Amino acid sequence: MTKLKGNLIFGQSGGPTSVINSSAAGVFLEALDHPEIIPRVFGMKNGIEGFLDDKLYDISAEDRYELELLTGTPSSNLGTCRYKLADPKKDDTDYRKILELCKKHDIRYFFYNGGNDSMDTCLKVSNFLASQNYECRVIGIPKTVDNDLCGTDHCPGFPSAARYVATSISEVWHDAHSYDIPMVVVFECMGRHAGWLTAASALAGEIDCGPDLIYVPEIPFDLDRMIDDTKKCLEKKNIVLISVSEGLRLEDGSLFAESYGARTADAFGHKQLGGTAAMLAESIREALNIKVRGIEFSLLQRCGAHLASGTDIRKAVEAGRTGVKAAIEGASNVMMGFERLQSDPYESKIIHVPLEVVANHEKTLPLEWINDEGNNIERPFIDYALPLIQGLAEQKYENGLPRFARLKKILVK
Amino acid sequence: MTKLKGNLIFGQSGGPTSVINSSAAGVFLEALDHPEIIPRVFGMKNGIEGFLDDKLYDISAEDRYELELLTGTPSSNLGTCRYKLADPKKDDTDYRKILELCKKHDIRYFFYNGGNDSMDTCLKVSNFLASQNYECRVIGIPKTVDNDLCGTDHCPGFPSAARYVATSISEVWHDAHSYDIPMVVVFECMGRHAGWLTAASALAGEIDCGPDLIYVPEIPFDLDRMIDDTKKCLEKKNIVLISVSEGLRLEDGSLFAESYGARTADAFGHKQLGGTAAMLAESIREALNIKVRGIEFSLLQRCGAHLASGTDIRKAVEAGRTGVKAAIEGASNVMMGFERLQSDPYESKIIHVPLEVVANHEKTLPLEWINDEGNNIERPFIDYALPLIQGLAEQKYENGLPRFARLKKILVK
Repeated sequence: MTKLKGNLIFGQSGGPTSVINSSAAGVFLEALDHPEIIPRVFGMKNGIEGFLDDKLYDISAEDRYELELLTGTPSSNLGTCRYKLADPKKDDTDYRKILELCKKHDIRYFFYNGGNDSMDTCLKVSNFLASQNYECRVIGIPKTVDNDLCGTDHCPGFPSAARYVATSISEVWHDAHSYDIPMVVVFECMGRHAGWLTAASALAGEIDCGPDLIYVPEIPFDLDRMIDDTKKCLEKKNIVLISVSEGLRLEDGSLFAESYGARTADAFGHKQLGGTAAMLAESIREALNIKVRGIEFSLLQRCGAHLASGTDIRKAVEAGRTGVKAAIEGASNVMMGFERLQSDPYESKIIHVPLEVVANHEKTLPLEWINDEGNNIERPFIDYALPLIQGLAEQKYENGLPRFARLKKILVK
Repeated sequence: MTKLKGNLIFGQSGGPTSVINSSAAGVFLEALDHPEIIPRVFGMKNGIEGFLDDKLYDISAEDRYELELLTGTPSSNLGTCRYKLADPKKDDTDYRKILELCKKHDIRYFFYNGGNDSMDTCLKVSNFLASQNYECRVIGIPKTVDNDLCGTDHCPGFPSAARYVATSISEVWHDAHSYDIPMVVVFECMGRHAGWLTAASALAGEIDCGPDLIYVPEIPFDLDRMIDDTKKCLEKKNIVLISVSEGLRLEDGSLFAESYGARTADAFGHKQLGGTAAMLAESIREALNIKVRGIEFSLLQRCGAHLASGTDIRKAVEAGRTGVKAAIEGASNVMMGFERLQSDPYESKIIHVPLEVVANHEKTLPLEWINDEGNNIERPFIDYALPLIQGLAEQKYENGLPRFARLKKILVK
């Protein structure tokens, strides 16, 4: 088979993670290793949105050392977007623009790094280009701290966020236990629909510093039951740690935070501040008359590169590198996924997941990994997640501060 | 001089830090090296409060390796307290109890690790024991993330918290810049009266990821002026980062958070949730109609041992070790302080600070280190603080999670 000669473009999409740039490093470094097949390598400024504006960074102009430093640099270094392509049957304007730009820049390798929305983008772009007989290999690279993509053992970004959450909780466990005074701490983890990252709190239990109660969106949330659970824990111990998802939902499917906010909003319409943790902390305080702290991990959990999992970084780079190799060999219309081979130590192989399997689908936490009371996480989750947080990130420091990649980001004219 | 033979007791007091256990390690390991002078080493369970209850841990029974691991273990491993001893002229009950317990356990070396309240405790205990002709060397070891103790170049705990704040802000900087959408992020740092830790946000500016605006308690806070400052920044750039102290105060000296909470509390008395960052975020959102995130570092900043400063740990251990040596040589009634010898790299020598200099005093940020507009930090602070965050903590990990010290904590009968 003659190899398809042409340029490569890579874009980042959706909420950033600690290792999304590791996949970028993988794609870029591998692509730059094949100049005879891929003469030029581009990065989309702010994902597909920037691409549609013809804003392309010239990655070939970057220093190799800085590209390598991307593995220790959190967030989407090229910029990200949340841009949903229209149904091409209804409006193909964007697609025609993409085709035109692919032709203009001789792009034959289209790489997109993101979650299920981004895989939907890949799928639509791939189908459209094929329908126009424009040969282009379209490859999806997974990423999301939510870990909710189908067809893959894990999603890059999740292990590092999981390590951040578990480590931070284990540290706060020590802080909370320093005073000999009854106290409750409520942690809020990301996850609007899936409880993977909140479940990762349970990993701190491996060093006996885990939460006593864990509530995930997969189980309908009942505030009174949670307060009752907390009360029971407080009968046995002074310090109770609780971890919850931002996306806790009531029996009717509505978000707890929204319903609570509406209920307590005052007559003047002052909005209730804070997220789920703050609201639960206040509810527990009122009900049990006890000291309560709410801690929201907020953006910290998804950009805490200094606590990234070495395994996560390694696998994120591998997804990028292998994707380029596979595309050169003819793969297209697939996402690079992981199939676990063993857990101790973690080993996986790259599999090609059809984009249809991933696009717009969501993988939630298996219900059998949640205890019967719906307030904690069972052993199978630990067995699943613990191998993923192994290995230290080799973060570079200068003057005690992280040495992040400094790309030149030269726009292609 | 004949050396004073007797046992040593060490206690931790006040809000914990990432390195308070490093000073404990220093005291314990040094004391255990001198069994001929100090036959037994005790730790107070929950500081002076536990000591008054005769709750002493037998440190001599601990494994040396676990004691060494204290340098990577955050918070007060022996437990802490906030207990203010009465004025001995009015009520000497506690002091008589302390004397009785010192006699009972043959304690001749009394070490207390804490902030200015704790140094007050040291001073009172020292004076009382002297008045009763009970010979006992009383040594204070400094600690506080607030960095507000007089007579010392820095306070152990501050450099690590500073490194945590600066690193986390630099990571969130990347996250915030991933979308090409106007946004404001407000960070809230600890500091009820002194702005040292909030000022440390400026260290992230050394890698061009620092906040655009910084507000500390030393300068009276004006919400309208802050909103105006933010607006001006937004005219020049899309993403604006703001760092504030939890202890921002209005012109009349009242806490901003309390006054805001009271003003927006509704007719039903629902308390406004969240801290200063959440309140400021909401105020900016309302005034400028822009996306705003409030991030409160909460307990994370004072227990983030995984990001501890190597210099901080080294100096915290040194304060403990040198304190024991000095006490053996006859020092008493002093706090171990640091005098800076040079900044690059950081070198200091231990000085003996009279307890009177430290007890109940507070060292705030020099006003000349704050800019004229009162919304940022000047270069001299960077020159002061940057050397303190150098050097990595040699954190031990197992299974990707921190390997904290596991003391047996056997209570003395």
